[in-house]
Amino acid sequence: MSIERRHDREFVRTFFTSPTAVKGEDDSAKMLRRAAQLRGMQAPDVWVPDNEDATAPSMRDEGAENIVDVIAEHGADFPGEIHPRIVWHRDSPATRYRCFEHLLEIADPERGAIERIDGFVIPEVGDIDDWKKADEFITIVENEYGLEEGSLAMSVIVESGEAELALADLREEMGKPSNNLERLFLLVDGEVDYTKDMRAITPTGGLPPWDELRHNTSRGASAAGLIAIDGPYDDIRDVEGYHERMTDNQAKGMLGIWSLTPGQVAEANRSPLPPETGSWLLEVNGREVDLSEEDGRYVYDGGDVTLEETGDDQYRLRAGGDERDLDGDELAEELLDLTSYIPSLNDIVDSMEEFEAAKEAGKGAIAMERSATLVIDGVEVEISNDRMWDEATYQAAQTPITLFQDVYENRPDQHEELEELYGDDVVDRAMVVG
Amino acid sequence: MSIERRHDREFVRTFFTSPTAVKGEDDSAKMLRRAAQLRGMQAPDVWVPDNEDATAPSMRDEGAENIVDVIAEHGADFPGEIHPRIVWHRDSPATRYRCFEHLLEIADPERGAIERIDGFVIPEVGDIDDWKKADEFITIVENEYGLEEGSLAMSVIVESGEAELALADLREEMGKPSNNLERLFLLVDGEVDYTKDMRAITPTGGLPPWDELRHNTSRGASAAGLIAIDGPYDDIRDVEGYHERMTDNQAKGMLGIWSLTPGQVAEANRSPLPPETGSWLLEVNGREVDLSEEDGRYVYDGGDVTLEETGDDQYRLRAGGDERDLDGDELAEELLDLTSYIPSLNDIVDSMEEFEAAKEAGKGAIAMERSATLVIDGVEVEISNDRMWDEATYQAAQTPITLFQDVYENRPDQHEELEELYGDDVVDRAMVVG
Amino acid sequence: MSIERRHDREFVRTFFTSPTAVKGEDDSAKMLRRAAQLRGMQAPDVWVPDNEDATAPSMRDEGAENIVDVIAEHGADFPGEIHPRIVWHRDSPATRYRCFEHLLEIADPERGAIERIDGFVIPEVGDIDDWKKADEFITIVENEYGLEEGSLAMSVIVESGEAELALADLREEMGKPSNNLERLFLLVDGEVDYTKDMRAITPTGGLPPWDELRHNTSRGASAAGLIAIDGPYDDIRDVEGYHERMTDNQAKGMLGIWSLTPGQVAEANRSPLPPETGSWLLEVNGREVDLSEEDGRYVYDGGDVTLEETGDDQYRLRAGGDERDLDGDELAEELLDLTSYIPSLNDIVDSMEEFEAAKEAGKGAIAMERSATLVIDGVEVEISNDRMWDEATYQAAQTPITLFQDVYENRPDQHEELEELYGDDVVDRAMVVG
Repeated sequence: MSIERRHDREFVRTFFTSPTAVKGEDDSAKMLRRAAQLRGMQAPDVWVPDNEDATAPSMRDEGAENIVDVIAEHGADFPGEIHPRIVWHRDSPATRYRCFEHLLEIADPERGAIERIDGFVIPEVGDIDDWKKADEFITIVENEYGLEEGSLAMSVIVESGEAELALADLREEMGKPSNNLERLFLLVDGEVDYTKDMRAITPTGGLPPWDELRHNTSRGASAAGLIAIDGPYDDIRDVEGYHERMTDNQAKGMLGIWSLTPGQVAEANRSPLPPETGSWLLEVNGREVDLSEEDGRYVYDGGDVTLEETGDDQYRLRAGGDERDLDGDELAEELLDLTSYIPSLNDIVDSMEEFEAAKEAGKGAIAMERSATLVIDGVEVEISNDRMWDEATYQAAQTPITLFQDVYENRPDQHEELEELYGDDVVDRAMVVG
Repeated sequence: MSIERRHDREFVRTFFTSPTAVKGEDDSAKMLRRAAQLRGMQAPDVWVPDNEDATAPSMRDEGAENIVDVIAEHGADFPGEIHPRIVWHRDSPATRYRCFEHLLEIADPERGAIERIDGFVIPEVGDIDDWKKADEFITIVENEYGLEEGSLAMSVIVESGEAELALADLREEMGKPSNNLERLFLLVDGEVDYTKDMRAITPTGGLPPWDELRHNTSRGASAAGLIAIDGPYDDIRDVEGYHERMTDNQAKGMLGIWSLTPGQVAEANRSPLPPETGSWLLEVNGREVDLSEEDGRYVYDGGDVTLEETGDDQYRLRAGGDERDLDGDELAEELLDLTSYIPSLNDIVDSMEEFEAAKEAGKGAIAMERSATLVIDGVEVEISNDRMWDEATYQAAQTPITLFQDVYENRPDQHEELEELYGDDVVDRAMVVG
Repeated sequence: MSIERRHDREFVRTFFTSPTAVKGEDDSAKMLRRAAQLRGMQAPDVWVPDNEDATAPSMRDEGAENIVDVIAEHGADFPGEIHPRIVWHRDSPATRYRCFEHLLEIADPERGAIERIDGFVIPEVGDIDDWKKADEFITIVENEYGLEEGSLAMSVIVESGEAELALADLREEMGKPSNNLERLFLLVDGEVDYTKDMRAITPTGGLPPWDELRHNTSRGASAAGLIAIDGPYDDIRDVEGYHERMTDNQAKGMLGIWSLTPGQVAEANRSPLPPETGSWLLEVNGREVDLSEEDGRYVYDGGDVTLEETGDDQYRLRAGGDERDLDGDELAEELLDLTSYIPSLNDIVDSMEEFEAAKEAGKGAIAMERSATLVIDGVEVEISNDRMWDEATYQAAQTPITLFQDVYENRPDQHEELEELYGDDVVDRAMVVG
């Protein structure tokens, strides 16, 4: 039997935390209440009323109360899933007991919130036996309140070396009859505490990139049918940096990320979706430069790559410190090596439809052509690239489409924005391809 | 007891796949037949008649027939090993049953192919228990046909997170009496399907680098006495990119790579062998530039590092944005830091012989000197470097020599090309050193 | 129960090996004797009389004798810990037996050395069962000589794929009643032999970076309460390269490194401690350039970033190939993105004190401001950055302070040098904060 995802969402782009109780406000639940009313691209796939680090320890009992109140009032209308984070620590039985008390309180069906809650987020987990302790508390609570066993999801924050090691055990442990770990949903990296736990130091105090942690989280999610989410990006002003981090994550199979503000939510909801228009990139001194489109031609107007026509079908190209004399064919070949294309949603749908038609007609592999007119220093060059598509290419290309479909099905509140972005026609075709 | 390699080859440079049956040709086995007749540097160490992804699903029964026919006819003369790939999927019992049927068909001794087949390649494996299922089918087939148990090798394609996790279990599982996993031979990464399984996305649709997967494959191979092979490099035109990938792989201990064409086979057979001549590299703006040799001197003729003599034993060096005034010793020291040397096969043999003689004479460590005359902007500078060699350095340097010896012993069809490349004398000395 | 460190040192910066017996000297123990008398920043946290690779095989029996003699004479006064390395190999029972003999000899209480020895270093370990064999020999020796079981530490050199895999088993195996693996202390990478074991090849013969090995070692140490140490850096002349390697290690949580000379010891003892003065970095073409301080302002005097005032509150900034016209606020914002600050020990202590006071006053998070005057092409710009500190930030920032405190408590011989470097006041405050 293949691993089946047991949850409604196959993809989660955004994990947005809100403090549950803020001191010194008239209404300590103000931030919860505001978050609960987010809609559209500013509303996350998973909203996390955060009764742990975002809330002062002395405010957490009030926070648990606020969670119940706000979700009972606004939960039914919230467009994403709701997964409160409650306290937990692998090294503190007192904290774990407090977790159990908050669980009992928040999940009490008489309070009217639990039917709107999809699951809970458990921070600071240790090795797999520690995960089982949290799972057991949730099982007891489900049983106590007559909820179906395993119906509440459990997501964990991976923020210790022990928890990272546990990621390799999930697939084996999730099948065992003495636990309900099949309730697992999100594996979320928590790099600030992980950095502390690993005792890492950087000169500026910035976080290390933790490539291996992110890989291992993504792999653990893949092997156990779960969803991998990256931790918070602290520098809220730095939108470009946030996008670079997301692109890096996506190449690891980690398609979701923590968001700290509605602005970050909107960026992160958008990031793993294909762009609305395709673009050509030119490699200039080891960096990829986006070419600007003018009347269907793609123009490089920097000074670091130069091109001149030196005679009949003769060109001189200077790039990366090299200067070369080339004929037209050599030039096109050379520029093909230096360029790459980022397909739009429409392009991906086109290619998939074309491959599906070819398969229908009995072909196993076809060449997809992509051509463009480049303009460098006023000189026009036609380039054209064939890429072979077979079943594997087709399936790998499908990930952004499956993601798009998952979003569109589960987030009606984003339909308008998505249709405005891509156009109705592309959205319709994207929903039936694959 | 140390891990012993159970197979003839200790190293495999090339894993070349051929479609087993192509529709619309007079002879559907044409590509198999052509591949079976490759010789010399164009012939792979391991040839893989590919009855999985390279062949259309509807053609695979005919493909199994073609495998038998072509190997029965040409297998005896093929200079490399022969390991057909047959269908398998961790999530599909139907595909696994089809695997068993093809195994029974291809391995039937009456058909005359099995005595020329070294083993089988199993794609799409899952966790270790899934590997055992394939192993068990091969055991049954061996028993049915009177072949020695464990005599058929089994190689796997690692193309899922589950299979990547299984790499850590091999050493422990291979010893167990209830399986014959000692038949394992190659661990081959399959990055296209792995990318799909990990649900990774890149803007251009290109494959992520998957550094951790390659490390874990190489480490799994090292711990279990197996051989690690990287997956296909799709862009067949891009010879430079293929070489960069191989250099990167080799630094991870992954010395073999998939090849899609005889041209790629020739490049990949050559890549892990030491070069025929040594060369000096100069670091220029963070990149390594190959210096051109002229009359035994190594000349930099780019413009990004400049040198002038400003007085008696006084020099001005400009490199990496810095300008510095140095005397002759300081200059030599500085240039030593900026240069590195790539030794030839002859250089490596020289150093090993020198260390062996020193060891014979009772010394545990000796300094190996390497000197050269550099020319920058017409100014000549002598540099000289001492590197300490001890037993560990000696043994680490031995890997390319052991590889060379393995190739030379197992591939008589490449003797002529190797002797032409390196000269008879160097080849003879390389075969006795170490 | 949380993992407790069972050893005196929570941090080890330096692991310094000395040959135990050198042929052809009047006193074969000369190098041991010299090393035993190092003090201050040149003396390592862990000194390793090396009866394995640093000593010729034929000299190792004499080496074991020298270890006993020199430690009996000088051990009581040595300021760091003493952990001799003795022979071992996962693949050789003969070598393991020799290990046992040397253990019995060196640990004999009548010889007067063992009371000064903190533990032993075991090289070339294999999988976890192999580690247990070494542990068992130490247990027998402890019992034989009336030493407390588990009182001798055991450190291992991770230099094989098998040993790297064992790092994931430590936490589980260390609790078992049939071993004394709680004696484990340091996990030390040995990249030269690891490279050989992984059969990796680089063109120049230099070592691969082995990022994943270092991560896995650091994670294994973190999960099991141990200390991770990187292997030797061969190029002794290359101080800058040694520092770059240490900075890279520190970002992985690997705070200690092997040292081959007292000069390297001094550099490595210094490297993980915060600097004595803070500094501003400017990102120039992808690299970080240290700005020079002049009268409290930070000046960039390279030519790759240019700035001019073009009008009233109008500026033109050229950086990274881009030219932009900005008003004063935009300019400050842009430069803030391009700069980062490396805090001094004093800065870190300041921030921690400030956060502690805020916490005392009931606040969970505060903004830490950092401002500076930058000068580019004579134009002055004020920049100012707020960073939010919460409990997690505070605790992650604490690592260098905890390290400093551990050093100061355990190494009285370095007090003078530390006070000279940082000033008495900063040292006193650093010892009470946190």
